[in-house]
Amino acid sequence: MHSFEALALDFKQRFEIGHFPAAPESLYASCNYFLSLGGKRVRPVMCLMGNELFGEIHPDAYHVATAIELFHNFTLIHDDIMDAAPLRRNMQTVHTKYGINTALLGGDVMLVVAYDYLNKIKGANLNKILHLFNKTAREVCEGQQLDIDFEKLPFVSLEEYIHMIELKTSVLLAASLQMGAMLGGASDGNCQHLYNFGKNLGIAFQIQDDYLDAFGDPEKFGKDLGGDIKQNKKTFLLIHALEVAAPAQKQELLQLMQENPADKVSKVLAIFKACNVDEWAWALKQQYLDKALQHLEDTAVVSVRKKPLIQLADFLIQREQ
Amino acid sequence: MHSFEALALDFKQRFEIGHFPAAPESLYASCNYFLSLGGKRVRPVMCLMGNELFGEIHPDAYHVATAIELFHNFTLIHDDIMDAAPLRRNMQTVHTKYGINTALLGGDVMLVVAYDYLNKIKGANLNKILHLFNKTAREVCEGQQLDIDFEKLPFVSLEEYIHMIELKTSVLLAASLQMGAMLGGASDGNCQHLYNFGKNLGIAFQIQDDYLDAFGDPEKFGKDLGGDIKQNKKTFLLIHALEVAAPAQKQELLQLMQENPADKVSKVLAIFKACNVDEWAWALKQQYLDKALQHLEDTAVVSVRKKPLIQLADFLIQREQ
Repeated sequence: MHSFEALALDFKQRFEIGHFPAAPESLYASCNYFLSLGGKRVRPVMCLMGNELFGEIHPDAYHVATAIELFHNFTLIHDDIMDAAPLRRNMQTVHTKYGINTALLGGDVMLVVAYDYLNKIKGANLNKILHLFNKTAREVCEGQQLDIDFEKLPFVSLEEYIHMIELKTSVLLAASLQMGAMLGGASDGNCQHLYNFGKNLGIAFQIQDDYLDAFGDPEKFGKDLGGDIKQNKKTFLLIHALEVAAPAQKQELLQLMQENPADKVSKVLAIFKACNVDEWAWALKQQYLDKALQHLEDTAVVSVRKKPLIQLADFLIQREQ
Repeated sequence: MHSFEALALDFKQRFEIGHFPAAPESLYASCNYFLSLGGKRVRPVMCLMGNELFGEIHPDAYHVATAIELFHNFTLIHDDIMDAAPLRRNMQTVHTKYGINTALLGGDVMLVVAYDYLNKIKGANLNKILHLFNKTAREVCEGQQLDIDFEKLPFVSLEEYIHMIELKTSVLLAASLQMGAMLGGASDGNCQHLYNFGKNLGIAFQIQDDYLDAFGDPEKFGKDLGGDIKQNKKTFLLIHALEVAAPAQKQELLQLMQENPADKVSKVLAIFKACNVDEWAWALKQQYLDKALQHLEDTAVVSVRKKPLIQLADFLIQREQ
C-alpha cells in the first residue's frame, strides 16, 4: 500500500514517456506541449488508490490511469478554446500557441489515444471499464455545456449549480476511483461507496475553490483574489448570496455586476460577508466532506487500507479556514 | 446477400432511432440536428457489406456500423468549424446554428457515443475492432491536420497529397469494410485485401471528386463548377498542373491564383486542358479503381458474393467521362 505522494511520483514518471507518434509533428507537438505543462495528476492517482484499497495494483490500472489523465487533458484543451483562455498554469494555452484548429484536432486525437490505452485492458474488465469511462465522458461534456448555458442565464438555483458541478468535475474523480476499485476486484457495493466518496469530495473541492477565490489567503492561493467576482462568474457564493440577500443588498449586488466599478471586488465581498456567505460556504464544504468520508467509512475494507484516501482528502480539502 | 441499396435502406431505418439522451437539450439538439441532415451512409453500409462478403450479418455489425457513422459525423462537425463553413448539404452547419462551443462539445460527445456502440461488441471481437477503429480515428485526425498544413504551403508533391487523402478519407472507408469482414470471420489475408480495396477506391473517389469540380457536367454535379479553383484549393489537378506545366504556363497559373481575376476559372481550366490534366486525372482514377478491383478479385470468396461490392464501386465511381 502506497501513500498518495508515492503513487503520484510513480505515475508521473510512467506518464512522462511519449504517448504520440512523431508525425505529423504539426499535430502531435500540440499534444506533447500541453502534457508538458504538468499538473497534479490527481485523477490517475485516484485510480491507482481505488485499486490499492482492495488489492495489489493490477498492471491494467496504469493503462486506465493514463487513459483518464489523457481524457482530462483533452477536456482542458477544448475547454480553453471555449473559454478563449489565453493562459493555463501561466503558460500559453494550446489554441493560443498553435491556433484553434490544431487545438481542436489535438484534443480530438488525445481522446482517441486515451481509448487506445483502455483497449490494453485484458479480459472482461474492458467491457465494464469502457462502460463507466464512456458514461463519465458523456457527463463531463454535459456538465461543460450546462456551465456555458448557465453563464447566459440571469439566475441559477443552487440545486442546478451542484448538478452542473457534479457532471463537470465530480464524476471524473468518482469514476477514477471506481475504475481502480473494479480492477482491484471490489464488490458492486464497495464500488458504489467509493464512487460516492469521490463525487462528494469533488463537490467539496469545488466549494472550497469558489470560497478561496473570494476569501483565500492571497499568498497561499497563488492567484489574484476576486477573479470570479470580476467576471460575474456563477459560483456557490454568488448563487447563495442572490438567494439569501435582502432586496436592497440584492439590488446592489446586481448593480455592481452590471456596472463593474473599480471597487467591485471589495463591495461584493462586503455583501457576501453581510449575508454570511463565507460561513455558509465553509459549512457546506464540510457537509460534503463529511458525506464523502462516511462513504469511505462504509466501504468494507480494513481501516488501515483507507489511510491513503483520507490523506488524499486532506490534500484536496483544507480543514482549517 | 443484399444489394448496396437494400443494405443502405436497412441501415438508414435502424440509424433513425435516437442516439442521445434528452437532456441537456442545448447539447444534444446540435447532435440530432446534424444527423437529421442525412447523408448517403456509405461507410456503415460498407461495414455491413464487408461482413456479408464472408457470412450472415453478425448482430454486432449494426453496432459497429452505427459507431462508424457517428464517428464520421463527429469529424464533419469539427471539420466544418475548422473550415469556417457556413453550410453543409445546403443547411446551416452546427457551429453556424448553435455556436462554436456547442459544435465543439456536440462533436466530442458524438465521438464518445460512437465508443458506446463499440462497447456493445461481444467477446474477443471488441479488442480487435477497437484497435482498428482507434488507429483509423488517429489517422483521420492526422489527415485533417496535413490538409490544414498543406493549404499554407506553396507546393505539395503528388505523393504527399495522396498520403494526406489516404489518411483523411480512404482509411475510414477501408476500415469500415475490414471491421465488417472481421465480424464475418474473414482471414487476416482477406481482411487485408478488402482493406486495400477500400483504400484504393477512396483515392479513386477523391480524384473523381477533384475532377468533377473542374470538368463535371454542372447539371449532374449539383454544385457550381470551379469551386476548388476559386479557393486555390490544392487538388489532384492543381498539384499535377504545377508539376507538368511549362514555365510560362506555371507563371500564369500562379498569377491567376494570386490575383483572382473574374475569369479565373475559365483561364485555369484552359491551362489544365493545355497540360492534359483532365486526361491524366481520369487515367489516374482508373488506375486506382483497377487496383481496388484487383484486391477484390484476390479476396478468396466465390465471385457471386462480390457482386454488391462491385455495385458499390460502380455507385461511387463513374466509368464514363
